[in-house]
Formats: sequence, structure tokens, C-alpha cells
Amino acid sequence: MDPRIREHAEVLVDWSARVEPGDDVVVEVDEGSIPLAIAVAEVLGERESNPLLTFAGDDPIRAYLRSFPTTEFPEDPAHALALYEETDVLLRLRGGTNTSAMADVPTATRQAYARARRSLTAARLETDWVSTLHPTASLAQQAFMATEAFRDFVYEAILRDWAALADEMVTLKDALDAGSEVRLTTEQTDLTMSIDGRRAVNSAASVAYDSHNLPSGEVFTAPYATEGVVVFDVPMMVHGEPVRDVRLTFESGEVVDIEAEVGQSVIEGIVETDEGARRLGELGIGMNRAIDRITNITLLDEKMGDTVHLALGRAYDACLPEGESGNQSAVHVDLIADVSEGASIAIDGEVVQRDGRFAWE
Amino acid sequence: MDPRIREHAEVLVDWSARVEPGDDVVVEVDEGSIPLAIAVAEVLGERESNPLLTFAGDDPIRAYLRSFPTTEFPEDPAHALALYEETDVLLRLRGGTNTSAMADVPTATRQAYARARRSLTAARLETDWVSTLHPTASLAQQAFMATEAFRDFVYEAILRDWAALADEMVTLKDALDAGSEVRLTTEQTDLTMSIDGRRAVNSAASVAYDSHNLPSGEVFTAPYATEGVVVFDVPMMVHGEPVRDVRLTFESGEVVDIEAEVGQSVIEGIVETDEGARRLGELGIGMNRAIDRITNITLLDEKMGDTVHLALGRAYDACLPEGESGNQSAVHVDLIADVSEGASIAIDGEVVQRDGRFAWE
Repeated sequence: MDPRIREHAEVLVDWSARVEPGDDVVVEVDEGSIPLAIAVAEVLGERESNPLLTFAGDDPIRAYLRSFPTTEFPEDPAHALALYEETDVLLRLRGGTNTSAMADVPTATRQAYARARRSLTAARLETDWVSTLHPTASLAQQAFMATEAFRDFVYEAILRDWAALADEMVTLKDALDAGSEVRLTTEQTDLTMSIDGRRAVNSAASVAYDSHNLPSGEVFTAPYATEGVVVFDVPMMVHGEPVRDVRLTFESGEVVDIEAEVGQSVIEGIVETDEGARRLGELGIGMNRAIDRITNITLLDEKMGDTVHLALGRAYDACLPEGESGNQSAVHVDLIADVSEGASIAIDGEVVQRDGRFAWE
Repeated sequence: MDPRIREHAEVLVDWSARVEPGDDVVVEVDEGSIPLAIAVAEVLGERESNPLLTFAGDDPIRAYLRSFPTTEFPEDPAHALALYEETDVLLRLRGGTNTSAMADVPTATRQAYARARRSLTAARLETDWVSTLHPTASLAQQAFMATEAFRDFVYEAILRDWAALADEMVTLKDALDAGSEVRLTTEQTDLTMSIDGRRAVNSAASVAYDSHNLPSGEVFTAPYATEGVVVFDVPMMVHGEPVRDVRLTFESGEVVDIEAEVGQSVIEGIVETDEGARRLGELGIGMNRAIDRITNITLLDEKMGDTVHLALGRAYDACLPEGESGNQSAVHVDLIADVSEGASIAIDGEVVQRDGRFAWE
């Protein structure tokens, strides 16, 4: 076995999920992530915890969704709900055989299924959950990379000194927590957002930091009252469609104009989903410099060093004061801007990053 | 997809498990049985039930059992127990990549793990469970057969007119239910067993018949007060060891002498497990004539036409009058005798089968 698979499992179980003896753990396995599941089971044994493995491959769920005679899916099956309500830690090991495996399931069917499982989703998010990926051939293909090169790339991003990165990122978190307004500028962007009263998350790939992805490596918060223009120049796939050079204009926190070189209708469709989809839910600043190229895999792309991402839609509770609810929406769609050249990020007028370089570096 | 996979899934869901709309179903998937899992998910969708797939591959459990630092496994994890307590139907889809995948897990470890999960096992047996197998290359290898030939063989055994076979088998069930004593004779065997007060199971591969294997095709009951000598001439693997020509002598229901051409110590070890392991728990008469050869896979072998099997150890509750407990034991080990030539089975002195042919055929 590639020794990095075992190292990945250790980082996941110990640093990310903080598994304790006796913890009831669910491990969600994809068809291509079985090698990682074996290593994770080994580490969970050493930690004297209780794994239960579920099979999360796309092909059976596609078959089920397409054969169900209506879209009236039963609400929150009791057995699945009972399982997740008693689960302490949920480890999602992504890595299928085809990232387009669900391409022919109608969107309305998927949405109806997701609606019918709202309580299940809520129970899952109540656990100490961590989502990671095993570098399969299919994910390498999504990234337009050779499989071996993709593996090296993914392990560079995952097998880091996370405590050291957390220490590095806390400076930015503290600056955002203390600040009231962020201004982002690039050659085509001039955008201001309020962050007053919001809490930034030092997303260091551990539930101990309110961070649920491995790899992670970003600092994010929940902005509001957005004003100005922003151009997202990093090409992306959104809902399976390519988008490129999206230009959004905000007034009083809401999108009032959309232009895009590619995929304009995709973005328009997202903004029209509901009230909250017109507003931002997240401002994230990528700080994982091992991620130095676009892969078309959002879990990786949004942590890329020298980038900023803004999400239309739902805000994360971790960014809000206790009891306060942020932007609500059925969607959360990240769009990414390159800030490595001709760009600056300022908090209350003080530049904290210029051309990808932080003031304290 | 091989259309027989879809037919297998329909027989499993409809005939065997009798899945109803709204049923909460657990599907246990092995690494090699994913194609069957996809077909089962499709049929479960058509039946408007709620599948949750678990991953039951041997490799992660081996890694877990070997890395656990003691044999003090936590008792019955709450999340797994909650899942199975709320489950209506459990479909076990066997089909791994290596039938010896657990060979280096110490027996004591496996036993300690099984003991720690007693309530979990009990909760699983409370469901309408069905165990079946997908014809993988690994199972074909276990049977010393080419993969394609093994597939044909398995589907012949599974894709039958089960209602017709149930009608055929009910004659034998009725004769056993009405009888008090069974006498089995072959060239080397003369064995009598009491079956008075016991109920025979018409094992027609459906929970509606108290039958939990697909394929099935046998009639079995729980004998006692066994007297005489029996020779099991069908070669078998028992606990991973070959056994051949096992000769057991019974007095007052208990084994008093053991001889075997091959594997005598394996049988001696089993008989010494506990008090109940010295007595019989099952008399089964194989009636699935599509199974016409030994495969070293007990699920198949014990249903073979023209064979009789006797199990040392635990009796099945379905064979006992309400409230009565039969032979208790930690083991249930089937041994098989060929009855196709020079053999007879008599109930209360009346021959019901001679040389593999039933009296009513």
C-alpha cells in the first residue's frame, strides 16, 4: 500500500475528526475509495473506536432515483435517521469511478430527494463530520491530470503540518474578527462587504477549528451589505456546466447585474433560486499553497493559495454570533478570483494582502 | 448488464424478502457485489422502499480487528444497534474478492468480536433478512470453477420457479411434521433421530417460509436423541480446513466417537466447543437439483439435490414449538452425505426417499 494512504488516514482520524476511544463512527465509502477505507479502519481500530461502513457509490443511488415511480420520496427513513442520530463522527471518503455518474438524474428528482431527507442531512451535520477524497483515476480526469501526478498533488495538499498552517492563518482570522469592512480590488474588481459582528473560521482541516474538509486551508467569514463589482476569473464547473469570467454587480447586498463570458445562464439560474441566492454567504481566502492549480474539484479549488472565493447563498453558522441567523438559501455556490497579481485585500482601509502576499509575510 | 443480475435482484426483493412500499431496507454490499447492489437499488426504487447501503467488505474489518490493541471490543455500538433496530429488511449481498481475506485474524479475536456484538446479531436476525451471493471470480475460484461457468451454475440455482419448488417440498415437510423418527441409511450409515414435536421448515428461499438464503431448496428440522453411525462422504471445507469421510457415532443423542480420513482434529475441536456441540441441531434434506456439484460454499452445498446434511450445534427456532428451546451452542457446522446411491430415508419405518428418489416422484 502507498504509505501516504496510511498517513492520510491518520491525519483524517486524529487531526481532522479527533476520534476518541469508544466513539461511534460512520465511514462513507465510495467504489474507488476502498483502499483509504481499509487504512481508516486500521487507524480506527488502534483508537478503539467503533466504525460502521456505509457504501456511498453513485451508481446504486442513480438507479434508485431513476426507478422510483414518483418524486414523492418517503421522508427521512427511520433506520437511517436512527443511525446518524447515534453517530459521533462521520468520515466521508469521496472517490468514485465517474464524476458524471448522476448526470442523467433529473434535477427535480435530486431536489425532491434532498428535500425528503432534510432531517437526515441535519442529523449528519450535527456529527463531527469530515469530508475528504481519495485520489482516484476519475478525480484525476476531472482535474485534467495524470493519475500519478494527481496523487502527488493531493497528498501534498493533505499531508501538511496543519498545526503550523493554523498558526499562520490565525493572524488573518484575528484581523477579520476585529474588522468591520473588507475591500477587495483587482484590475476589474472593486467590492466592499461588511463583516461587522461576524466571526471568521480558521479552517485548518479539523473539527476543533469548525473546519470539515481535508484538505482545507482557508479563512472564511460571512459578509453582508455587499457593494460594487467583482470579476471571477478562475474557470470553474458549476452544476456540471463550465463558467468563465463571471462579473457580478452588487447594490445594497444584492446582485443587480450578471455578465459572464461562459455560463451566464447558469449563474442567472442560481441567483433566481430564492431570495438568499442574490446575496453572499461566504468570503473565503485560500491559503493552502500546495494547491497551486485548478482541478474542477471545489473541495480543492476553493482552498487554493492566492485566491479569494465568494459564495452566493447560504452562510455557515460557525461565522455567526450565537442565536443569529445569517443568509439563508437552498444554494451555496462558490466562485473564485485570482488575487496573485494587481490585487489587494484591505480590512478597514488597511491592506492585509497585496498580489497574494500577506502584510505579515 | 447481464440481465440475470436484474432477475436475481427481483427474486431477492419480491420473492425472498417480500419488500413492501415504505420498508426501511439495509443492503450489505461486498467489494465484488456492487453490480448486484445497483440492480437491487433499482428494484427497491420501483417498490418505493428506503435502502441504506452498508459496506461489508472483509478487508476493512480485517484491518480493524488486527489493529485493535486488545480483544476488549466495545459492546454493541449504539449507532449500529439503532440502525438495525429500525430496519425492516436486511439484504446481504455476498461476493468479495478473496474468500481467505480474514485468514490471518486470530480465531480468539474473531470470537471476542462476535461476543461483543451479540445484541447487534440478535437485532439483525429480528429483521426479515436474506443472504444471497453475487457470482464473483473469487467465489468461482473457491468452487474450482471457471468464472463464466460458475455464473451459469449460480443463476440456474437462483432463477427458479420457487413457488413450484415450494409445492414440491411441502410433501416432505408434511411427512416430517407428522412423523416421530427418521432413519437414515447408506452403505456405511445407520442413524436414527427423534423429530417428535418438531416442525420442519419448507426452505423455499423466502422469509414467508422462514427461509433466509437465496438460493435455498431444502427441508430441514431439528432432530434429537440421535443413535447410531453416520458417514459424511461429501468433501468440505470446515473453518477453512478440508475435511473428508467423517464418521460419527452417536449414543443417547451425543457424539461418542469421531473418525475422519482428513480433518479429524477440526471435527474434534468443534465437538469440544460446548455441551451443545456434541449434539445435532439440524437435519436437512437438499432438494435444489440445479445444485449438482460441490462448490465449497456452504450456502450452496447444503441445498444440493440428493444429499442430506446434519449440523452439529445450534438448532433453528423455526423448527421448535413456541416457547421451547432446542439445542443451544456457539457453533452450527453442517456436514454432508451423498444419498444418490445405496441410501434411504425412512420416517416411522416408511421409506420416503431411496437412492435420491422420493416416494412420490
